[in-house]
Amino acid sequence: MFKKILIANRGEIAVRIIRAARELGIQTVAVYSEADRNALHTLIADEAVCIGPAKATESYLNMHQIISAAVTLGAEAIHPGFGFLSENSKFANLCEEVGVKFIGPSALVMDTMGDKINARAQMLAANVPVIPGSDGEVYDATQALEVAQKIGYPVMLKASAGGGGKGIRKVNSQDELLPNFSSAQAEAQAAFGNGAMYMERVIYPARHIEVQILADEFGHVVHLGERDCSLQRNNQKVLEEAPSIAIGQSLRAEIGAAAVAAAKHVGYENAGTIEFLLDEASGKFYFMEMNTRIQVEHPVTEFVTGVDIVKNQIKIAAGEALGFTQDDIKIKGHAIECRINAENPKFNFAPSPGKITDLYLPSGGVGLRVDSAMYQGYTIPPYYDSMIAKVIVHGENRFEALMKMQRALFELEVEGVHTNAEFQLDLISDRHVIAGDYDTAFLGEVFLPDYLKKED
Amino acid sequence: MFKKILIANRGEIAVRIIRAARELGIQTVAVYSEADRNALHTLIADEAVCIGPAKATESYLNMHQIISAAVTLGAEAIHPGFGFLSENSKFANLCEEVGVKFIGPSALVMDTMGDKINARAQMLAANVPVIPGSDGEVYDATQALEVAQKIGYPVMLKASAGGGGKGIRKVNSQDELLPNFSSAQAEAQAAFGNGAMYMERVIYPARHIEVQILADEFGHVVHLGERDCSLQRNNQKVLEEAPSIAIGQSLRAEIGAAAVAAAKHVGYENAGTIEFLLDEASGKFYFMEMNTRIQVEHPVTEFVTGVDIVKNQIKIAAGEALGFTQDDIKIKGHAIECRINAENPKFNFAPSPGKITDLYLPSGGVGLRVDSAMYQGYTIPPYYDSMIAKVIVHGENRFEALMKMQRALFELEVEGVHTNAEFQLDLISDRHVIAGDYDTAFLGEVFLPDYLKKED
Repeated sequence: MFKKILIANRGEIAVRIIRAARELGIQTVAVYSEADRNALHTLIADEAVCIGPAKATESYLNMHQIISAAVTLGAEAIHPGFGFLSENSKFANLCEEVGVKFIGPSALVMDTMGDKINARAQMLAANVPVIPGSDGEVYDATQALEVAQKIGYPVMLKASAGGGGKGIRKVNSQDELLPNFSSAQAEAQAAFGNGAMYMERVIYPARHIEVQILADEFGHVVHLGERDCSLQRNNQKVLEEAPSIAIGQSLRAEIGAAAVAAAKHVGYENAGTIEFLLDEASGKFYFMEMNTRIQVEHPVTEFVTGVDIVKNQIKIAAGEALGFTQDDIKIKGHAIECRINAENPKFNFAPSPGKITDLYLPSGGVGLRVDSAMYQGYTIPPYYDSMIAKVIVHGENRFEALMKMQRALFELEVEGVHTNAEFQLDLISDRHVIAGDYDTAFLGEVFLPDYLKKED
Repeated sequence: MFKKILIANRGEIAVRIIRAARELGIQTVAVYSEADRNALHTLIADEAVCIGPAKATESYLNMHQIISAAVTLGAEAIHPGFGFLSENSKFANLCEEVGVKFIGPSALVMDTMGDKINARAQMLAANVPVIPGSDGEVYDATQALEVAQKIGYPVMLKASAGGGGKGIRKVNSQDELLPNFSSAQAEAQAAFGNGAMYMERVIYPARHIEVQILADEFGHVVHLGERDCSLQRNNQKVLEEAPSIAIGQSLRAEIGAAAVAAAKHVGYENAGTIEFLLDEASGKFYFMEMNTRIQVEHPVTEFVTGVDIVKNQIKIAAGEALGFTQDDIKIKGHAIECRINAENPKFNFAPSPGKITDLYLPSGGVGLRVDSAMYQGYTIPPYYDSMIAKVIVHGENRFEALMKMQRALFELEVEGVHTNAEFQLDLISDRHVIAGDYDTAFLGEVFLPDYLKKED
C-alpha cells in the first residue's frame, strides 16, 4: 500500500479522500490555492502545499506545480478527485512519466472514452446499446439529411470537437434541419476551429441512469448497481438516488452487464461510471458517456452496497485485487443525495460566496451522512464550484429515505450565504418526486417554473 | 401510528428520539428544564414545554409535570430515553393511568427485572445461567459462611436493597468474611433501613457482554447480537463495540438464545438489554442484569445489523409487529462507540461544563456517525450527565473500525471545555485494545495508571 498520497483537489471531495487515505494508514498531502489557506482540506491533511493563486488555472489546474509538490514531498500517488485534472489524460501521462501513480484509469483509456465518437465506436464493438446516430462525423447538410432520415426525428446535432453547449442544436423535423446544421457548423468552426458534426436521435422523455463500476488491474470488473440522476437543472445534477425506481431486477442485471462489458472492452481500471439514457416506456437504454473518475454522487451507491468506493480506488491503484465479486454485491434499501450549493435559487441560482456565520450540519441517527468541507466561520471563496455540502440518507425503503432527507434538510442551517436547501426541501416534497415520477426534463420544465412562481 | 409523542429526556438521546419520530411522520414534544432553554432538543422539536428548574428532581424527574405536558398537548405516548424516568415503574404506571403509552415494557416487568433477587429467580426459572450465589437473601454471618463455602471464594456481598455502591464488599477468603459481612450489613441497614444481603461469586477476569433484544406485543422476540462493554471506569462504560472479539458464532447463538429466553420468560415487550459476565477462558456466561430501556451504546448494534432500534421501540409501542425475524438479522462488519464526555481525565475526570467556543464534529465518508446535542456556542450546563457526544464508527472489520475511530477522534474539536477525546484516542491506540485483549478491570487497573503517569 502507498505510504503517502497527494490529493489534487479541494472542497468536500478532497476532505473525503484525505479521510479515506488516513483510514487506510496513508499519509496525506493537500494542495491548496492562496484562497484556500483556511479550507478544511488544507487544515486536516498531514501536509499541505500552496500551489498558486486562487484562479484554478494557476493552482488546481497547474499540473507542473502539483506534480512537483508530489515529487518533492515523496507522494507515491495522486488522487485527482472530480473536476479539475481528473479527466485530463495529459496530467495522467505526466504523473506516469515521473513515476507517480495516477489514481484512475490509464491516460489511453481516458482519451478513448473522453472522445465521444471514439467512445461510441468502442461501445458498438462491445455490444453496448448506443443512441441511434451518425456512427461517425457528418460534414455536410446532404449527409445530415440522410442520417436524420435513417434515425428519425427529433435529432440532436453536436459539434464533434464540442463542449460547453457550443455547436449544439435540437432539430424537430426535416424543415428545421438545413438552417440548423449550417448555423451549428458555423458555430463549431468558430469555437473549436473544426466544423465536423455528429448526430444522435433525441431520446425523450428519458431518465439519466448511470452504473458505477470498479475494475482492478487483474481484469475483475464489478458493477455496484445504478443511480438515477434524472433530476437536473441545465444538465447539472441536483438530486440523485439509488436504486432507480424505474429499474427492476432484470433490467438492473442487463444494464449492469452492459456497463461491465463496456469497461472490460476498453480495459478499464479503477472506478468509473457509465451513463445511460433510459427510455422508460420501452425499457431500452442507450450509452451516453463514461466518466473516468469518482463522481459527486458516489455516496448513494456506497450506502446501498456498503462498498467504500474511494478506498477501493486507492487499493486498486496500489495494485490490490478487488476483495469481492459481483455476487457479493447486494443492493440494500434506498439512498438519496441532495447537493447543497451556496446559491440563490430565487435569483437565477446566482452563486452566493461569503462567510458562514452560523452552521448546523444535521447528524446522528441511522443512515445519514453529510459530506462537506464547511465549518462555522469558514468563508466560501468565489472562485470555485458552489457546491458546499452533500446530504445523503439511507433508508430501508425509498419512503423512509425521503422522510429522513426531509428531517435532515429541516435541521440544516447555513447562515451568512444563500443556499438551495429550501429548494431541495421543496423538491423532495413535490408529489412527482415522491412518486418517483420524473425524467430529465422534469426539474427544469415542470418543477422550477412552479417553484419560481411561489411567494417567499 | 402515533400522531404525536413526548420525549421525556434531554441531550443527545432526546435529539436521537426526536429525529426518529420525525422520520416516522410523528410530531414531537420536547420537555426542558430552565437550564435547557437553548438545548438542541428544545430547539428542534415541533413543540417544547418548560417543566421546571434546572435540578433534575424538579424537571426531568418531575413525573406529574411531564405527564401533564403530554396530556395538555395531546401526546399519545412518552419516550423516556435512558436515565431519568426510564426505569421508573411508578412513572410507567402513571402514564398508563392517564392513557398515555409508555414507550417501554410494562411497569410489572420493569419491577420484576429491577429487583435483583427477583430477576435472578426469574432467570433461573428460564434456564438462563446466573452467577452462582445465595439464591435469596442472607440474614446472618453463619448463613453467609455456608453460602460462601458452597459457591467458592472470592465472593461479593451486596445489600439486597442496595445501589450506589453502598453495602458492597468483595471477600477473598473465609478470614475476611465475618468482619466484612458485619460492616456491609451495618452500612446497608444505615443506608436503606434494610440489612438483608445477598451473595454472588466474583467472576473475574470477565468481559461485560450484553445482548440487545427487541420484543413486540405478539410475543416475537429477536436478539440483535451482542455488545462488548468491558472497557469501563468505575462501572461506567467508556467504549463499546459490536460484535465482541471474545465471541464466536456458536457462543453468539447460545448467549443470544439465553437473552431471548429471558425476555420471553418475563413477557418482555419493547427494546431491552440483557447484561452478562463472560468468563472468557471457560466460555461460560452469567446473567448480571437487564436494562429495560434503550441504552447509550445502542448505535453500535444499529451499525452492524442495520436495524433502527429507536424507531422499532416506537413502532412496537404503537402495536406494530416486528418487521423481521431472527433469520433476517445478520451481523455485518464491526462497530465501535467512544463516549465523549465534558470532563478532565487528568483531574480525576472532573466534569467540565461551560460554553463551547469552537466545535468541529467529524462527519462524512462511509460508516461514521456522531450522535450529539452540541452546537457551536452551546453552553453545557453543570446539572446533568457529562456525556456530550458519541462517536460511532462502522468498518468492514475491527481493524478498519479502529482506524476510522482514530481519524474521527483526530478531527474532533471541542473548544471551551475539557473533554476525554484525547483519552479515548490513547485508549484505542493501546496495544491491548487494538488486540481486543481486555476485561472489565483493564481500563481502571492497567490502562489508567499508565495514562496518568504520561506527561502532557
